Amino acid sequence: MDDWKQRLRTYADAAEAFLAEQFTDDLPQKRLFEAMRYSLLAGGKRIRPVLTVEFCRVCGGDWRQAVPFGCALEMIHTYSLIHDDLPCMDNDDYRRGKLTCHKVYGEAMAVLAGDALLTAAFETAAGAGAPAEMTVAVLRMLSACAGELGMVGGQVLDLEGERLEPDAAYIHRLQELKTGALLKAACQMGVLAAGGSQEQLRAAADYARAIGLAFQTQDDILDVEGDFEKLGKRVGMDEKKNTFVRLYGLARCHEIVREQTDAAIAALSPFADRAFLTELANYLAGRES
Amino acid sequence: MDDWKQRLRTYADAAEAFLAEQFTDDLPQKRLFEAMRYSLLAGGKRIRPVLTVEFCRVCGGDWRQAVPFGCALEMIHTYSLIHDDLPCMDNDDYRRGKLTCHKVYGEAMAVLAGDALLTAAFETAAGAGAPAEMTVAVLRMLSACAGELGMVGGQVLDLEGERLEPDAAYIHRLQELKTGALLKAACQMGVLAAGGSQEQLRAAADYARAIGLAFQTQDDILDVEGDFEKLGKRVGMDEKKNTFVRLYGLARCHEIVREQTDAAIAALSPFADRAFLTELANYLAGRES
Repeated sequence: MDDWKQRLRTYADAAEAFLAEQFTDDLPQKRLFEAMRYSLLAGGKRIRPVLTVEFCRVCGGDWRQAVPFGCALEMIHTYSLIHDDLPCMDNDDYRRGKLTCHKVYGEAMAVLAGDALLTAAFETAAGAGAPAEMTVAVLRMLSACAGELGMVGGQVLDLEGERLEPDAAYIHRLQELKTGALLKAACQMGVLAAGGSQEQLRAAADYARAIGLAFQTQDDILDVEGDFEKLGKRVGMDEKKNTFVRLYGLARCHEIVREQTDAAIAALSPFADRAFLTELANYLAGRES
Repeated sequence: MDDWKQRLRTYADAAEAFLAEQFTDDLPQKRLFEAMRYSLLAGGKRIRPVLTVEFCRVCGGDWRQAVPFGCALEMIHTYSLIHDDLPCMDNDDYRRGKLTCHKVYGEAMAVLAGDALLTAAFETAAGAGAPAEMTVAVLRMLSACAGELGMVGGQVLDLEGERLEPDAAYIHRLQELKTGALLKAACQMGVLAAGGSQEQLRAAADYARAIGLAFQTQDDILDVEGDFEKLGKRVGMDEKKNTFVRLYGLARCHEIVREQTDAAIAALSPFADRAFLTELANYLAGRES
């Protein structure tokens, strides 16, 4: 196996192990824990924790100390998927090839499982044992990226955009918030966890912005070209308005994925050891699920 | 006006003013901000911020510095009401005499407004400008009280209890988590904000536990005896299983309110200046809404 794939596996396994230890108490509300774990351990790619720990490492930190921060982001990502899949939102029955949380546990429990995962993200980051100043900086970033000026703000633009005829600026803003904000925080929290420089924070943001745009564009492409078997969810949802494919067409979207992947790699110049993040950007651009 | 009522007004006004400044940006997602403010500024009693700032004051702190912490709790309280009122949960159309958030803004927006308020609570506490060690202690308490071992855990017990024949231990546990956890955090965060002692933290927890039990019992009494005009919400929901009235009957419930109020007042002995918290406990026991 390639070196970088070995590292990817190591990071993803560390995140998986950390997450697998959560919410296991034998308490009367254990059905809530089950619902949280059902979605949290449904086999995501763990891209956000991987980014956090690698940015920590390339900034000279001990990557293991960044695992809880990355996993906090993964909890936020998971809660957003649970709520997004609800009947009053996207009304999806499948996610990663499994029934969605509300299909298994009911809507009320799915709402609460999402709420609890969001809350647990902050508890996890606050309780990671990092120095207090660093913890506060991480928590400020975590809350800012996830909230009304970040991910949730983007979900609202998505919701409202379905009624409108959104222009390019609107859709770029939507993507920047809905998927970009968490990726940016994933990269920057790694820099914070290593006590990195302002220059490194900026470079992490640039890398995140570019892979975020490539990632979302690839998502939109797969929504048209992908297949259910590989994706584990519905495809051909091309009636959706807020997509890059609708805005630019498929051919141009493939170019955007390539351009933004190159831009992401170029943003890595302040880091001496950039092989992994380079390979990761290329891998994300070529993924089929 | 009594001294203590003047102080209650001062605290509630300070919380109201702080909350009124939030989520006012003119951005494309401003309908989200509207939905958040609609529920956040719907005229609650602001009991949680009042408790936080007063416990800060009686422990020798500057109460104004505790306002953001108290308001963070109020955001969590508000989000929990928005999600609780959803059709898949309690399906309530009215709250405090106004249409519920989802009746005005739709279900999807109400889910997101709740998510954003929960997230904003952590952002508010993390960004309050308190010393880093204190901020981390507050955030750990805030996330613990709100999550799967606190408030959300209690909501799940409530949900599951509707299917069961819950016993006294179950209903007490439910109340302790669903409404007690946030009240305990409200009192203890005030102590933390003043750098108070372990003894003061314990006394704050004892006071909170007792007023919480009195408060919930009074709530259950009002659900049977109250009227829509004063409560601003449906009454006579006595088919609900998880209530103290169902468990103990009305007469015993009135006694419990009195006993627990006395217990709350007794818990205040470590504090020299306990007039306000004494009056507040009595006021909560006698409230009609």
